Amino acid sequence: MIITSRQNESIKAIRSLHDSKGRQQSGLFLTEGLRAVIQALQSGSEVEKIVYNPDELVSSLGRETVKEAQSKGIDTLHVTADVLDSLARKEKPQGILAVVKQQWHTLPQTAQTAKGLWLGLEAIQNPGNLGTILRICDAVAAKGLLLFEESTDPYDPAAVKASMGSIFTVPVYKPSFEALETWIEQNQNLSVVGSSDRGAKDFALFEYPADCLILMGSERQGLSEKYLSLCSDVVAIPMQGACDSLNISVATGIIAYQAAIQHRTIS
Amino acid sequence: MIITSRQNESIKAIRSLHDSKGRQQSGLFLTEGLRAVIQALQSGSEVEKIVYNPDELVSSLGRETVKEAQSKGIDTLHVTADVLDSLARKEKPQGILAVVKQQWHTLPQTAQTAKGLWLGLEAIQNPGNLGTILRICDAVAAKGLLLFEESTDPYDPAAVKASMGSIFTVPVYKPSFEALETWIEQNQNLSVVGSSDRGAKDFALFEYPADCLILMGSERQGLSEKYLSLCSDVVAIPMQGACDSLNISVATGIIAYQAAIQHRTIS
Repeated sequence: MIITSRQNESIKAIRSLHDSKGRQQSGLFLTEGLRAVIQALQSGSEVEKIVYNPDELVSSLGRETVKEAQSKGIDTLHVTADVLDSLARKEKPQGILAVVKQQWHTLPQTAQTAKGLWLGLEAIQNPGNLGTILRICDAVAAKGLLLFEESTDPYDPAAVKASMGSIFTVPVYKPSFEALETWIEQNQNLSVVGSSDRGAKDFALFEYPADCLILMGSERQGLSEKYLSLCSDVVAIPMQGACDSLNISVATGIIAYQAAIQHRTIS
Repeated sequence: MIITSRQNESIKAIRSLHDSKGRQQSGLFLTEGLRAVIQALQSGSEVEKIVYNPDELVSSLGRETVKEAQSKGIDTLHVTADVLDSLARKEKPQGILAVVKQQWHTLPQTAQTAKGLWLGLEAIQNPGNLGTILRICDAVAAKGLLLFEESTDPYDPAAVKASMGSIFTVPVYKPSFEALETWIEQNQNLSVVGSSDRGAKDFALFEYPADCLILMGSERQGLSEKYLSLCSDVVAIPMQGACDSLNISVATGIIAYQAAIQHRTIS
Protein backbone atom coordinates (compact mmCIF):
# COMPACT_ATOMS: atom_id res chain seq x y z
CA MET A 1 0.00 0.00 0.00
CA ILE A 2 1.26 3.46 -0.90
CA ILE A 3 0.43 6.33 1.40
CA THR A 4 -0.66 9.25 -0.75
CA SER A 5 -2.15 11.66 1.77
CA ARG A 6 -0.33 14.12 3.98
CA GLN A 7 -3.26 13.80 6.36
CA ASN A 8 -2.76 10.06 6.92
CA GLU A 9 -2.66 9.49 10.70
CA SER A 10 0.76 7.78 10.67
CA ILE A 11 2.19 10.63 8.60
CA LYS A 12 0.71 13.25 10.91
CA ALA A 13 2.24 11.47 13.90
CA ILE A 14 5.67 11.46 12.25
CA ARG A 15 5.31 15.11 11.27
CA SER A 16 4.67 15.98 14.92
CA LEU A 17 8.33 15.03 15.58
CA HIS A 18 9.36 18.36 14.05
CA ASP A 19 8.08 19.95 17.26
CA SER A 20 9.55 19.49 20.71
CA LYS A 21 6.13 18.60 22.11
CA GLY A 22 5.70 15.74 19.66
CA ARG A 23 9.21 14.47 20.39
CA GLN A 24 8.69 14.69 24.13
CA GLN A 25 5.38 12.84 24.10
CA SER A 26 6.58 10.02 21.85
CA GLY A 27 10.24 9.72 22.86
CA LEU A 28 11.03 9.50 19.14
CA PHE A 29 12.89 11.65 16.63
CA LEU A 30 13.40 11.97 12.88
CA THR A 31 16.55 11.57 10.85
CA GLU A 32 16.65 12.36 7.13
CA GLY A 33 18.67 11.11 4.22
CA LEU A 34 20.23 7.81 3.26
CA ARG A 35 23.52 8.25 5.10
CA ALA A 36 21.77 9.14 8.36
CA VAL A 37 19.31 6.25 8.06
CA ILE A 38 22.17 3.79 7.52
CA GLN A 39 24.00 5.26 10.54
CA ALA A 40 20.86 4.82 12.62
CA LEU A 41 20.51 1.18 11.56
CA GLN A 42 24.19 0.41 12.16
CA SER A 43 24.44 2.21 15.51
CA GLY A 44 22.17 -0.19 17.31
CA SER A 45 19.58 2.55 17.87
CA GLU A 46 15.95 1.42 17.88
CA VAL A 47 14.63 2.33 14.45
CA GLU A 48 10.84 2.34 14.68
CA LYS A 49 9.88 3.20 11.13
CA ILE A 50 11.40 3.90 7.78
CA VAL A 51 9.55 6.16 5.35
CA TYR A 52 10.63 6.04 1.73
CA ASN A 53 9.70 6.95 -1.80
CA PRO A 54 11.23 4.41 -4.22
CA ASP A 55 11.27 6.87 -7.15
CA GLU A 56 13.66 9.13 -5.23
CA LEU A 57 15.77 6.24 -3.91
CA VAL A 58 17.99 6.21 -6.93
CA SER A 59 20.95 4.21 -5.61
CA SER A 60 20.97 0.47 -5.15
CA LEU A 61 22.29 1.14 -1.63
CA GLY A 62 19.04 2.97 -0.90
CA ARG A 63 16.86 0.10 -2.10
CA GLU A 64 18.99 -2.43 -0.20
CA THR A 65 18.68 -0.38 2.97
CA VAL A 66 14.88 -0.56 2.79
CA LYS A 67 15.02 -4.33 2.15
CA GLU A 68 17.42 -4.84 5.04
CA ALA A 69 15.12 -2.90 7.36
CA GLN A 70 12.15 -4.98 6.22
CA SER A 71 14.07 -8.21 6.87
CA LYS A 72 14.73 -6.96 10.41
CA GLY A 73 11.00 -6.48 10.90
CA ILE A 74 11.13 -2.69 10.89
CA ASP A 75 7.92 -1.01 9.78
CA THR A 76 8.52 0.56 6.33
CA LEU A 77 6.11 3.07 4.86
CA HIS A 78 6.04 3.49 1.09
CA VAL A 79 4.89 7.08 0.43
CA THR A 80 4.56 9.49 -2.49
CA ALA A 81 7.16 12.21 -3.09
CA ASP A 82 4.63 14.77 -1.88
CA VAL A 83 4.09 12.96 1.44
CA LEU A 84 7.84 12.58 1.95
CA ASP A 85 8.32 16.29 1.28
CA SER A 86 5.78 17.05 3.98
CA LEU A 87 7.95 15.16 6.51
CA ALA A 88 11.35 16.49 5.46
CA ARG A 89 13.15 19.53 6.78
CA LYS A 90 15.98 19.23 4.29
CA GLU A 91 15.36 20.32 0.74
CA LYS A 92 16.41 16.90 -0.53
CA PRO A 93 15.77 14.07 1.92
CA GLN A 94 17.11 11.64 -0.74
CA GLY A 95 13.91 9.62 -0.71
CA ILE A 96 14.23 8.23 2.80
CA LEU A 97 13.93 9.06 6.48
CA ALA A 98 13.74 7.12 9.71
CA VAL A 99 11.80 7.43 12.97
CA VAL A 100 14.20 6.50 15.78
CA LYS A 101 13.84 6.10 19.53
CA GLN A 102 15.58 8.74 21.67
CA GLN A 103 18.28 7.46 23.99
CA TRP A 104 18.74 9.35 27.25
CA HIS A 105 21.42 8.13 29.62
CA THR A 106 21.44 8.55 33.40
CA LEU A 107 24.54 9.52 35.37
CA PRO A 108 25.33 6.54 37.61
CA GLN A 109 25.32 7.78 41.21
CA THR A 110 28.27 5.55 42.06
CA ALA A 111 32.07 5.68 42.07
CA GLN A 112 34.38 4.70 39.20
CA THR A 113 31.96 5.97 36.59
CA ALA A 114 33.67 9.22 35.62
CA LYS A 115 36.73 8.22 33.67
CA GLY A 116 38.06 10.07 30.65
CA LEU A 117 36.91 13.27 28.99
CA TRP A 118 33.34 14.54 29.40
CA LEU A 119 31.68 17.67 28.06
CA GLY A 120 28.85 19.61 29.67
CA LEU A 121 26.78 22.51 28.33
CA GLU A 122 24.71 24.87 30.44
CA ALA A 123 21.54 26.07 28.73
CA ILE A 124 22.76 25.93 25.14
CA GLN A 125 20.15 27.59 22.91
CA ASN A 126 20.93 26.84 19.28
CA PRO A 127 20.26 23.29 17.99
CA GLY A 128 22.81 23.72 15.18
CA ASN A 129 25.49 24.50 17.76
CA LEU A 130 24.43 21.52 19.86
CA GLY A 131 24.68 19.17 16.86
CA THR A 132 28.10 20.58 15.96
CA ILE A 133 29.27 19.95 19.53
CA LEU A 134 28.02 16.34 19.35
CA ARG A 135 30.30 16.00 16.33
CA ILE A 136 33.20 17.36 18.39
CA CYS A 137 32.42 14.88 21.22
CA ASP A 138 32.55 12.05 18.69
CA ALA A 139 35.87 13.31 17.25
CA VAL A 140 37.63 13.60 20.63
CA ALA A 141 36.12 10.33 21.89
CA ALA A 142 34.34 12.07 24.78
CA LYS A 143 32.56 9.66 27.12
CA GLY A 144 29.37 11.66 27.02
CA LEU A 145 27.68 15.04 26.62
CA LEU A 146 25.84 16.45 29.65
CA LEU A 147 23.08 19.00 29.03
CA PHE A 148 22.15 21.24 31.95
CA GLU A 149 19.24 23.56 32.65
CA GLU A 150 17.02 24.68 29.78
CA SER A 151 19.20 23.37 26.97
CA THR A 152 17.82 22.95 23.49
CA ASP A 153 16.87 19.46 22.31
CA PRO A 154 19.61 17.25 20.76
CA TYR A 155 16.78 15.50 18.88
CA ASP A 156 15.64 18.73 17.19
CA PRO A 157 15.95 18.13 13.41
CA ALA A 158 18.55 20.92 13.11
CA ALA A 159 20.69 19.35 15.87
CA VAL A 160 20.37 15.87 14.38
CA LYS A 161 21.43 17.20 10.98
CA ALA A 162 24.39 19.19 12.32
CA SER A 163 25.57 16.18 14.35
CA MET A 164 26.28 14.30 11.09
CA GLY A 165 25.46 10.97 12.72
CA SER A 166 27.14 11.68 16.08
CA ILE A 167 23.69 11.71 17.71
CA PHE A 168 23.86 7.92 17.31
CA THR A 169 27.31 7.47 18.86
CA VAL A 170 27.67 10.05 21.66
CA PRO A 171 25.81 9.24 24.90
CA VAL A 172 23.64 12.20 25.93
CA TYR A 173 22.63 12.97 29.51
CA LYS A 174 20.31 15.55 31.04
CA PRO A 175 21.14 15.41 34.74
CA SER A 176 19.80 17.71 37.42
CA PHE A 177 22.29 19.92 39.26
CA GLU A 178 21.89 17.62 42.27
CA ALA A 179 22.65 14.49 40.24
CA LEU A 180 25.76 16.23 38.92
CA GLU A 181 26.86 17.13 42.45
CA THR A 182 26.43 13.54 43.63
CA TRP A 183 28.33 12.19 40.64
CA ILE A 184 31.23 14.57 41.33
CA GLU A 185 31.25 13.65 45.03
CA GLN A 186 31.27 9.95 44.20
CA ASN A 187 34.14 10.38 41.74
CA GLN A 188 36.94 12.26 43.45
CA ASN A 189 39.21 11.46 40.49
CA LEU A 190 37.09 13.76 38.29
CA SER A 191 38.10 17.39 37.85
CA VAL A 192 35.51 19.90 36.73
CA VAL A 193 37.01 22.57 34.48
CA GLY A 194 34.90 25.53 33.45
CA SER A 195 35.31 27.78 30.44
CA SER A 196 34.57 31.46 30.86
CA ASP A 197 35.90 34.74 29.55
CA ARG A 198 36.53 35.56 33.21
CA GLY A 199 38.65 32.39 33.59
CA ALA A 200 41.99 32.88 35.36
CA LYS A 201 43.93 30.30 33.36
CA ASP A 202 44.92 30.26 29.73
CA PHE A 203 43.23 27.26 28.09
CA ALA A 204 46.42 26.37 26.21
CA LEU A 205 48.74 26.46 29.23
CA PHE A 206 46.40 24.59 31.56
CA GLU A 207 47.11 20.90 32.21
CA TYR A 208 43.85 19.05 31.82
CA PRO A 209 43.43 16.09 34.20
CA ALA A 210 42.90 12.70 32.55
CA ASP A 211 39.43 12.42 34.10
CA CYS A 212 37.89 15.75 33.30
CA LEU A 213 34.48 17.31 32.83
CA ILE A 214 34.69 20.50 30.77
CA LEU A 215 31.76 22.86 31.33
CA MET A 216 30.75 25.44 28.72
CA GLY A 217 28.14 28.17 29.19
CA SER A 218 25.33 29.30 26.94
CA GLU A 219 25.76 31.43 23.81
CA ARG A 220 24.75 34.67 25.49
CA GLN A 221 25.21 34.27 29.22
CA GLY A 222 28.29 32.07 29.50
CA LEU A 223 28.66 29.81 32.51
CA SER A 224 26.60 30.86 35.56
CA GLU A 225 27.92 31.22 39.12
CA LYS A 226 26.05 28.06 40.07
CA TYR A 227 28.08 25.92 37.68
CA LEU A 228 31.29 27.92 38.10
CA SER A 229 31.11 27.02 41.81
CA LEU A 230 31.63 23.35 40.89
CA CYS A 231 34.82 24.05 38.93
CA SER A 232 38.27 23.44 40.39
CA ASP A 233 39.70 25.55 37.57
CA VAL A 234 38.30 27.98 35.03
CA VAL A 235 40.06 28.48 31.72
CA ALA A 236 39.69 31.27 29.18
CA ILE A 237 40.49 31.53 25.48
CA PRO A 238 42.55 34.65 24.85
CA MET A 239 41.08 36.92 22.20
CA GLN A 240 41.99 40.02 20.29
CA GLY A 241 39.91 42.23 18.09
CA ALA A 242 36.49 43.78 18.38
CA CYS A 243 34.49 40.66 19.11
CA ASP A 244 34.20 39.61 22.73
CA SER A 245 33.51 35.93 22.18
CA LEU A 246 33.77 32.99 19.82
CA ASN A 247 30.89 30.87 18.61
CA ILE A 248 30.13 28.32 21.35
CA SER A 249 30.85 25.29 19.18
CA VAL A 250 34.17 26.80 18.02
CA ALA A 251 35.16 27.51 21.65
CA THR A 252 34.14 23.98 22.67
CA GLY A 253 36.20 22.51 19.83
CA ILE A 254 39.29 24.52 20.76
CA ILE A 255 39.20 23.54 24.44
CA ALA A 256 38.12 19.91 23.92
CA TYR A 257 40.96 19.37 21.44
CA GLN A 258 43.47 20.95 23.80
CA ALA A 259 42.44 18.48 26.51
CA ALA A 260 42.31 15.50 24.15
CA ILE A 261 45.70 16.25 22.63
CA GLN A 262 47.42 16.50 26.01
CA HIS A 263 46.32 12.98 26.79
CA ARG A 264 46.48 11.74 23.22
CA THR A 265 43.15 10.03 23.64
CA ILE A 266 42.88 10.61 19.90
CA SER A 267 45.37 9.72 17.22
CA MET B 1 8.68 62.27 6.31
CA ILE B 2 7.81 58.76 7.38
CA ILE B 3 8.01 55.97 4.82
CA THR B 4 4.91 53.84 5.20
CA SER B 5 5.01 51.67 2.06
CA ARG B 6 6.99 48.51 1.50
CA GLN B 7 6.86 49.39 -2.19
CA ASN B 8 8.70 52.71 -1.76
CA GLU B 9 11.59 52.73 -4.26
CA SER B 10 14.29 53.32 -1.62
CA ILE B 11 12.90 50.47 0.47
CA LYS B 12 12.77 48.13 -2.52
CA ALA B 13 16.40 48.96 -3.33
CA ILE B 14 17.44 48.18 0.24
CA ARG B 15 15.43 44.94 0.24
CA SER B 16 17.32 43.83 -2.88
CA LEU B 17 20.42 43.56 -0.66
CA HIS B 18 19.00 40.29 0.72
CA ASP B 19 19.95 38.76 -2.62
CA SER B 20 23.46 38.29 -3.95
CA LYS B 21 22.50 39.97 -7.23
CA GLY B 22 21.35 43.12 -5.43
CA ARG B 23 24.52 43.19 -3.35
CA GLN B 24 26.75 42.65 -6.34
CA GLN B 25 25.15 45.39 -8.42
CA SER B 26 25.19 47.98 -5.65
CA GLY B 27 28.36 47.02 -3.74
CA LEU B 28 26.33 47.49 -0.56
CA PHE B 29 25.11 45.23 2.24
CA LEU B 30 22.72 45.27 5.18
CA THR B 31 23.47 44.97 8.88
CA GLU B 32 20.67 44.67 11.44
CA GLY B 33 20.31 45.62 15.07
CA LEU B 34 21.64 48.41 17.25
CA ARG B 35 24.92 46.77 18.21
CA ALA B 36 25.81 46.01 14.59
CA VAL B 37 24.89 49.53 13.44
CA ILE B 38 27.10 51.04 16.14
CA GLN B 39 29.94 48.73 15.13
CA ALA B 40 29.52 49.81 11.50
CA LEU B 41 29.65 53.48 12.47
CA GLN B 42 32.68 53.03 14.74
CA SER B 43 34.64 50.83 12.33
CA GLY B 44 35.17 53.52 9.77
CA SER B 45 33.06 51.67 7.21
CA GLU B 46 31.09 53.80 4.79
CA VAL B 47 27.55 53.80 6.16
CA GLU B 48 25.26 54.90 3.32
CA LYS B 49 21.88 54.85 5.03
CA ILE B 50 20.31 54.17 8.36
CA VAL B 51 16.73 52.90 8.48
CA TYR B 52 14.91 53.16 11.79
CA ASN B 53 11.56 53.04 13.50
CA PRO B 54 11.63 55.29 16.58
CA ASP B 55 8.85 53.35 18.36
CA GLU B 56 11.05 50.23 18.41
CA LEU B 57 14.22 52.14 19.32
CA VAL B 58 13.54 51.91 23.03
CA SER B 59 16.99 52.74 24.40
CA SER B 60 18.45 56.22 24.55
CA LEU B 61 21.56 54.73 22.94
CA GLY B 62 19.44 53.87 19.91
CA ARG B 63 18.05 57.39 19.59
CA GLU B 64 21.52 58.90 20.08
CA THR B 65 22.92 56.64 17.39
CA VAL B 66 20.40 57.97 14.87
CA LYS B 67 21.19 61.58 15.90
CA GLU B 68 24.91 60.98 15.61
CA ALA B 69 24.47 59.52 12.12
CA GLN B 70 22.38 62.55 11.09
CA SER B 71 25.06 64.91 12.40
CA LYS B 72 27.59 63.07 10.23
CA GLY B 73 25.40 63.66 7.20
CA ILE B 74 24.30 60.05 6.83
CA ASP B 75 20.94 59.58 5.14
CA THR B 76 18.44 58.37 7.79
CA LEU B 77 15.08 56.93 6.81
CA HIS B 78 12.26 57.05 9.33
CA VAL B 79 9.98 54.08 8.54
CA THR B 80 7.00 52.29 10.04
CA ALA B 81 7.42 49.02 11.95
CA ASP B 82 5.88 47.19 9.01
CA VAL B 83 8.39 48.63 6.52
CA LEU B 84 11.29 47.80 8.85
CA ASP B 85 10.02 44.24 9.20
CA SER B 86 10.04 43.92 5.41
CA LEU B 87 13.77 44.72 5.41
CA ALA B 88 14.81 42.59 8.35
CA ARG B 89 16.00 39.01 8.31
CA LYS B 90 16.18 38.75 12.08
CA GLU B 91 12.94 38.38 13.99
CA LYS B 92 13.77 41.45 16.04
CA PRO B 93 15.94 44.01 14.24
CA GLN B 94 15.66 46.24 17.37
CA GLY B 95 14.25 49.11 15.36
CA ILE B 96 17.34 49.86 13.30
CA LEU B 97 19.46 48.69 10.42
CA ALA B 98 22.19 50.15 8.26
CA VAL B 99 23.14 50.02 4.58
CA VAL B 100 26.92 49.81 4.40
CA LYS B 101 29.45 49.82 1.57
CA GLN B 102 31.26 46.51 0.97
CA GLN B 103 35.03 46.61 1.41
CA TRP B 104 37.03 44.27 -0.80
CA HIS B 105 40.78 44.33 -0.43
CA THR B 106 43.31 43.44 -3.12
CA LEU B 107 46.41 41.35 -2.43
CA PRO B 108 49.39 43.63 -3.09
CA GLN B 109 51.53 41.99 -5.77
CA THR B 110 54.69 43.10 -4.01
CA ALA B 111 57.13 41.85 -1.39
CA GLN B 112 56.90 42.48 2.36
CA THR B 113 53.13 42.33 2.37
CA ALA B 114 52.58 38.87 3.83
CA LYS B 115 53.49 39.16 7.48
CA GLY B 116 51.69 37.39 10.29
CA LEU B 117 48.82 34.92 10.26
CA TRP B 118 46.42 34.73 7.30
CA LEU B 119 43.48 32.43 6.68
CA GLY B 120 42.20 31.24 3.32
CA LEU B 121 39.04 29.30 2.43
CA GLU B 122 38.48 27.42 -0.81
CA ALA B 123 34.86 27.44 -1.98
CA ILE B 124 33.17 27.69 1.43
CA GLN B 125 29.43 27.19 0.94
CA ASN B 126 27.60 28.12 4.14
CA PRO B 127 27.33 31.84 5.00
CA GLY B 128 26.89 31.04 8.72
CA ASN B 129 30.19 29.16 8.70
CA LEU B 130 31.86 32.03 6.86
CA GLY B 131 30.63 34.55 9.44
CA THR B 132 31.78 32.33 12.29
CA ILE B 133 35.24 32.11 10.68
CA LEU B 134 35.39 35.92 10.38
CA ARG B 135 34.83 35.95 14.15
CA ILE B 136 37.77 33.53 14.57
CA CYS B 137 39.97 35.73 12.36
CA ASP B 138 39.12 38.68 14.58
CA ALA B 139 39.90 36.70 17.74
CA VAL B 140 43.32 35.47 16.58
CA ALA B 141 44.21 38.84 15.04
CA ALA B 142 44.55 37.37 11.55
CA LYS B 143 45.78 39.87 8.97
CA GLY B 144 43.04 38.94 6.55
CA LEU B 145 40.66 36.31 5.21
CA LEU B 146 41.18 35.13 1.62
CA LEU B 147 38.19 33.64 -0.21
CA PHE B 148 38.97 31.43 -3.20
CA GLU B 149 36.88 30.02 -6.04
CA GLU B 150 33.09 29.99 -5.70
CA SER B 151 32.93 30.93 -2.05
CA THR B 152 29.72 32.18 -0.51
CA ASP B 153 29.33 35.92 0.09
CA PRO B 154 30.67 37.38 3.36
CA TYR B 155 28.06 40.12 2.91
CA ASP B 156 25.16 37.63 2.90
CA PRO B 157 22.90 38.61 5.85
CA ALA B 158 23.53 35.22 7.53
CA ALA B 159 27.31 35.71 7.29
CA VAL B 160 27.11 39.30 8.55
CA LYS B 161 24.99 38.16 11.51
CA ALA B 162 27.26 35.21 12.40
CA SER B 163 30.35 37.45 12.19
CA MET B 164 29.08 39.42 15.21
CA GLY B 165 30.69 42.60 13.91
CA SER B 166 33.92 41.00 12.64
CA ILE B 167 32.84 41.79 9.08
CA PHE B 168 33.80 45.39 9.95
CA THR B 169 37.24 44.57 11.35
CA VAL B 170 38.68 41.67 9.31
CA PRO B 171 39.99 42.57 5.83
CA VAL B 172 38.41 40.30 3.21
CA TYR B 173 40.05 39.40 -0.11
CA LYS B 174 38.84 37.46 -3.13
CA PRO B 175 42.02 36.88 -5.13
CA SER B 176 42.34 34.75 -8.24
CA PHE B 177 44.57 31.69 -8.06
CA GLU B 178 47.12 33.57 -10.16
CA ALA B 179 47.12 36.57 -7.81
CA LEU B 180 47.68 34.19 -4.91
CA GLU B 181 50.60 32.54 -6.73
CA THR B 182 52.22 35.91 -7.41
CA TRP B 183 51.75 37.01 -3.80
CA ILE B 184 53.41 33.81 -2.56
CA GLU B 185 56.29 34.21 -5.03
CA GLN B 186 56.82 37.78 -3.97
CA ASN B 187 56.83 36.85 -0.27
CA GLN B 188 59.29 34.02 0.25
CA ASN B 189 58.91 34.48 4.02
CA LEU B 190 55.31 33.22 3.81
CA SER B 191 54.56 29.54 4.34
CA VAL B 192 51.35 28.08 3.00
CA VAL B 193 49.95 25.39 5.30
CA GLY B 194 46.98 23.35 4.16
CA SER B 195 44.45 21.50 6.27
CA SER B 196 43.17 18.17 4.99
CA ASP B 197 42.12 14.84 6.44
CA ARG B 198 44.87 13.43 4.20
CA GLY B 199 47.46 15.73 5.81
CA ALA B 200 50.70 14.04 6.86
CA LYS B 201 51.33 16.18 9.95
CA ASP B 202 49.43 16.36 13.20
CA PHE B 203 48.09 19.92 13.55
CA ALA B 204 49.10 20.03 17.22
CA LEU B 205 52.69 18.87 16.71
CA PHE B 206 53.37 21.05 13.69
CA GLU B 207 55.39 24.24 14.19
CA TYR B 208 53.56 27.02 12.40
CA PRO B 209 55.84 29.64 10.82
CA ALA B 210 55.37 33.20 12.03
CA ASP B 211 54.29 34.32 8.55
CA CYS B 212 51.74 31.74 7.60
CA LEU B 213 48.72 31.35 5.34
CA ILE B 214 46.46 28.52 6.53
CA LEU B 215 44.25 27.10 3.78
CA MET B 216 41.00 25.28 4.58
CA GLY B 217 38.83 23.42 2.06
CA SER B 218 35.08 23.48 1.53
CA GLU B 219 32.52 21.73 3.75
CA ARG B 220 32.09 18.76 1.43
CA GLN B 221 35.14 18.53 -0.78
CA GLY B 222 37.97 19.65 1.46
CA LEU B 223 41.01 21.30 -0.10
CA SER B 224 41.49 20.52 -3.81
CA GLU B 225 44.74 19.34 -5.42
CA LYS B 226 45.12 22.76 -7.02
CA TYR B 227 45.41 24.49 -3.66
CA LEU B 228 47.19 21.58 -1.94
CA SER B 229 49.94 22.00 -4.55
CA LEU B 230 50.73 25.44 -3.08
CA CYS B 231 51.21 24.08 0.44
CA SER B 232 54.65 23.43 1.92
CA ASP B 233 52.96 21.38 4.64
CA VAL B 234 49.55 19.83 5.13
CA VAL B 235 48.22 19.25 8.63
CA ALA B 236 45.36 17.04 9.79
CA ILE B 237 43.20 17.05 12.90
CA PRO B 238 43.17 13.54 14.40
CA MET B 239 39.68 12.16 14.92
CA GLN B 240 38.02 9.21 16.50
CA GLY B 241 34.47 8.05 16.31
CA ALA B 242 31.98 7.56 13.52
CA CYS B 243 32.15 11.02 12.00
CA ASP B 244 34.82 11.63 9.40
CA SER B 245 35.06 15.39 9.75
CA LEU B 246 34.46 18.39 11.98
CA ASN B 247 32.37 21.40 11.09
CA ILE B 248 34.57 23.70 8.94
CA SER B 249 34.41 26.63 11.37
CA VAL B 250 35.30 24.36 14.32
CA ALA B 251 38.27 22.92 12.37
CA THR B 252 39.38 26.44 11.40
CA GLY B 253 39.16 27.58 15.02
CA ILE B 254 41.22 24.63 16.29
CA ILE B 255 44.03 25.12 13.75
CA ALA B 256 44.06 28.93 13.82
CA TYR B 257 44.32 28.90 17.62
CA GLN B 258 47.13 26.35 17.53
CA ALA B 259 49.10 28.65 15.21
CA ALA B 260 48.25 31.82 17.15
CA ILE B 261 49.17 30.28 20.50
CA GLN B 262 52.57 29.11 19.32
CA HIS B 263 53.46 32.67 18.43
CA ARG B 264 51.42 34.26 21.20
CA THR B 265 50.08 36.80 18.78
CA ILE B 266 47.13 36.82 21.15
CA SER B 267 47.11 37.25 24.90
